[in-house]
Amino acid sequence: MFRLDELVARLGGEVSGDPAVLVRRVATLDQAEEGDLAFLANRKYLSRLQGSGASAIIVAPDARALLNGRSGIVTHDPYLYFARVVQLFNPPPPPRAGIHLLAAVASPLPPSVEVGAGASIEEDVEIGEDVVVGPGCHIGRGARIGRGTRLAARVTIQHGCVLGEDCIIHSGVVVGSDGFGFAREKDGRWVKIPQVGRVVIGNEVEIGANTTIDRGALDDTSIGDGCKLDNQIQIAHNVRIGENTAIAGCVGIAGSTVIGARCMIGGQAGIIGHLSICDDVVVSAGTLVSKSITRPGVYTASLPLQPHAEWVRNFAHLRHLDALVGRVRALENQ
Amino acid sequence: MFRLDELVARLGGEVSGDPAVLVRRVATLDQAEEGDLAFLANRKYLSRLQGSGASAIIVAPDARALLNGRSGIVTHDPYLYFARVVQLFNPPPPPRAGIHLLAAVASPLPPSVEVGAGASIEEDVEIGEDVVVGPGCHIGRGARIGRGTRLAARVTIQHGCVLGEDCIIHSGVVVGSDGFGFAREKDGRWVKIPQVGRVVIGNEVEIGANTTIDRGALDDTSIGDGCKLDNQIQIAHNVRIGENTAIAGCVGIAGSTVIGARCMIGGQAGIIGHLSICDDVVVSAGTLVSKSITRPGVYTASLPLQPHAEWVRNFAHLRHLDALVGRVRALENQ
Amino acid sequence: MFRLDELVARLGGEVSGDPAVLVRRVATLDQAEEGDLAFLANRKYLSRLQGSGASAIIVAPDARALLNGRSGIVTHDPYLYFARVVQLFNPPPPPRAGIHLLAAVASPLPPSVEVGAGASIEEDVEIGEDVVVGPGCHIGRGARIGRGTRLAARVTIQHGCVLGEDCIIHSGVVVGSDGFGFAREKDGRWVKIPQVGRVVIGNEVEIGANTTIDRGALDDTSIGDGCKLDNQIQIAHNVRIGENTAIAGCVGIAGSTVIGARCMIGGQAGIIGHLSICDDVVVSAGTLVSKSITRPGVYTASLPLQPHAEWVRNFAHLRHLDALVGRVRALENQ
Repeated sequence: MFRLDELVARLGGEVSGDPAVLVRRVATLDQAEEGDLAFLANRKYLSRLQGSGASAIIVAPDARALLNGRSGIVTHDPYLYFARVVQLFNPPPPPRAGIHLLAAVASPLPPSVEVGAGASIEEDVEIGEDVVVGPGCHIGRGARIGRGTRLAARVTIQHGCVLGEDCIIHSGVVVGSDGFGFAREKDGRWVKIPQVGRVVIGNEVEIGANTTIDRGALDDTSIGDGCKLDNQIQIAHNVRIGENTAIAGCVGIAGSTVIGARCMIGGQAGIIGHLSICDDVVVSAGTLVSKSITRPGVYTASLPLQPHAEWVRNFAHLRHLDALVGRVRALENQ
Repeated sequence: MFRLDELVARLGGEVSGDPAVLVRRVATLDQAEEGDLAFLANRKYLSRLQGSGASAIIVAPDARALLNGRSGIVTHDPYLYFARVVQLFNPPPPPRAGIHLLAAVASPLPPSVEVGAGASIEEDVEIGEDVVVGPGCHIGRGARIGRGTRLAARVTIQHGCVLGEDCIIHSGVVVGSDGFGFAREKDGRWVKIPQVGRVVIGNEVEIGANTTIDRGALDDTSIGDGCKLDNQIQIAHNVRIGENTAIAGCVGIAGSTVIGARCMIGGQAGIIGHLSICDDVVVSAGTLVSKSITRPGVYTASLPLQPHAEWVRNFAHLRHLDALVGRVRALENQ
Repeated sequence: MFRLDELVARLGGEVSGDPAVLVRRVATLDQAEEGDLAFLANRKYLSRLQGSGASAIIVAPDARALLNGRSGIVTHDPYLYFARVVQLFNPPPPPRAGIHLLAAVASPLPPSVEVGAGASIEEDVEIGEDVVVGPGCHIGRGARIGRGTRLAARVTIQHGCVLGEDCIIHSGVVVGSDGFGFAREKDGRWVKIPQVGRVVIGNEVEIGANTTIDRGALDDTSIGDGCKLDNQIQIAHNVRIGENTAIAGCVGIAGSTVIGARCMIGGQAGIIGHLSICDDVVVSAGTLVSKSITRPGVYTASLPLQPHAEWVRNFAHLRHLDALVGRVRALENQ
């Protein structure tokens, strides 16, 4: 439970109204009750402010007047402030130091590390202080995991891979599976190219459930500091991603593509292999990136949704677009 | 082994031909042999009826004459009837009550529950009668799982999440991983918003292998009774799905989208965040839903397949469609 | 460490320059140092040859002159040769024969088999010599796994499924989960059709991390010898795939579709159910295959990437393409 003036002392901003108001939880404007701190980050939700049961509301300076006598905190970025308050109210539980009786650990670990039931850690693994290895995780020989990183249940880190500090890796993630590398015989049979690179992941990276990151063929696959990856993303061998890039769910990135810093890749986007995407690029959801991007900006390739019957009428023409252009040219030449 | 008249006594329908015919298995028309019961659900497969080795065939009333002296069962929905017969012939094995020696269980469980090797169940978990927790599953603190629900091997249910009764959860599913929620600092760094909502899943829900469902940010993510989710689906935080909606494989649904009851979402479809899809909507495979849908019906957005050379010729024009429309307008104005 | 003439004695090709040059690692032209063997498989990278620190370089006959006095190996397919050398330099570690104390094994196994911590193997499982069952794997009752096959950590093989010899199955793979089969009641509720087929996988198949392959409804799902599947692929029930077909990441293949031999399916492609794709078909990345393909060749359906503002201008017209065609026809009729 915090008073508004205590929050402001810790996180900045300015109290509007009664500094002694107590809040103990964060909630949306709609759901908030007595004791809750809500936030107004988007003027689209302005109409919900009036009826909200929140004890206090985080608002931007230009919305201060809308508080209309209610208590609140004024800050330039209410959403960022909200994030900080939720962190303050919900600190991660400290590691429960120790190795579960049903875990198999073949490397020496610092005493602060938590290893859950059913986890296995092979030889020559280096693990930092305060790391959590959840139940059923597997960490292969020679892997390194930095201080404070948390692996949820059932994460796989293959041999030799490196994770930085303060990462959060969700359940079902696989780091360091073999890249998809084969040479083809004349008769069509595939000859496996052993994948001998690693995956190297920076600090403060978060990786969502069931995301997969393949190890490099010869060199490494790398994910920069501060990257945030959502669920079910596939990152192929030798991809390199710059700092603080965020990637939404179900994105696939093919081999050897290089992505810059601070990019945002929308859900289900796909990026072809051997491309280069510069810093500060935004790719819209569902877009297939089929060539390199050299200038920051928003890029899109997706279809407008239609009722099925309209789609049938319109889209049949796509197969004859070249002919249509020819017909227009013929008309112009008349 | 059942006689046709025994099947009809249990499941309804009407025997055509010899009621004493014995069947012990269900098979497709093509594969059926002596002792098999086949079905004709689609007149497309009519030609396969004649040569089928089945001992009896399930048909609709309008196909009764096609039996042509063979034995069978006449019912209004042969496919539904077939489903009931397969269930009758293949009841799920009863739970093998008891906790495996290599499982780690920190909550009291009813004696009828089966817990497999390598599974871990944390504190304050409530599990109903006849639940099966497969090998290598993990159930986090405070989760609740209703009577008769079955978790296949290697399922993760994170802390506080709720599953109803008689659900079937396949291997690799992750329920309750953190939603993808971050606020952005001015310098591009991301600040994690702890995800404190839950996932709440109704009764008789089936969830396919490696599907992921994120916990809500503040409020809950919810999946209605009777929903059927295929493999590798990604459901983001705060999505709400109505009853009996079926979703095919590889679909991605972004945050806070609300989907109605009895919808059918085709494979690899994507649904943008913060949308609302009404009841009884069908989305075709591969379609990106980029705006809310307020009327039942079938919606589509996908491209016609072409040989690559034709595609190159036609699709280059898409980037200049606006110019083409302008050229047509100019011709019209002449 | 190998001399060039030793490599040529084992793998074929011809030494150019000093046959006594020693190499101990394979590297890209860019990264190669003293003691490394690099390769030039694509003339695009020709410029990197000159400055490479490699001790020797694998080249095609038409690039022999470019060695310009450096040592190397001349072969008709440098990439295939490179694959063979990497295999020679990086043989898979032999199984560490034996069953981990924390594994639960209910079937007799050959003494050469390795079973990792937390793995569980049910009754009536048949496992060949030199099989590796990684930590946390689960193998269901009655499954069969051929000689030399390796399961990485946390693989699930459900009951009754069959894997051939010398397969490599990566972490998080699920083989034999239930197919997505339901009949629909009039009120919209779904009735599960128990899935009683198996998955049958040939020899020398590789399956990437978190890929899922559903068991057949009545008949089997099957994957031919030599197929290579990348990560996060979804293969639905009763799909049949011919020999040596390669499928890139994130592909979804719907139920009962049959795919020929030696096909190559690009990343994030989708294939609708009940189709037939002939041998030697190439499907481009991101393409939705919505009808059967009866002739070998390359098939594509994807959109050109555009800056968002241009996309908005151009793609709005797609919803009115039929009207545009009508306008052109009207002009032509004038």
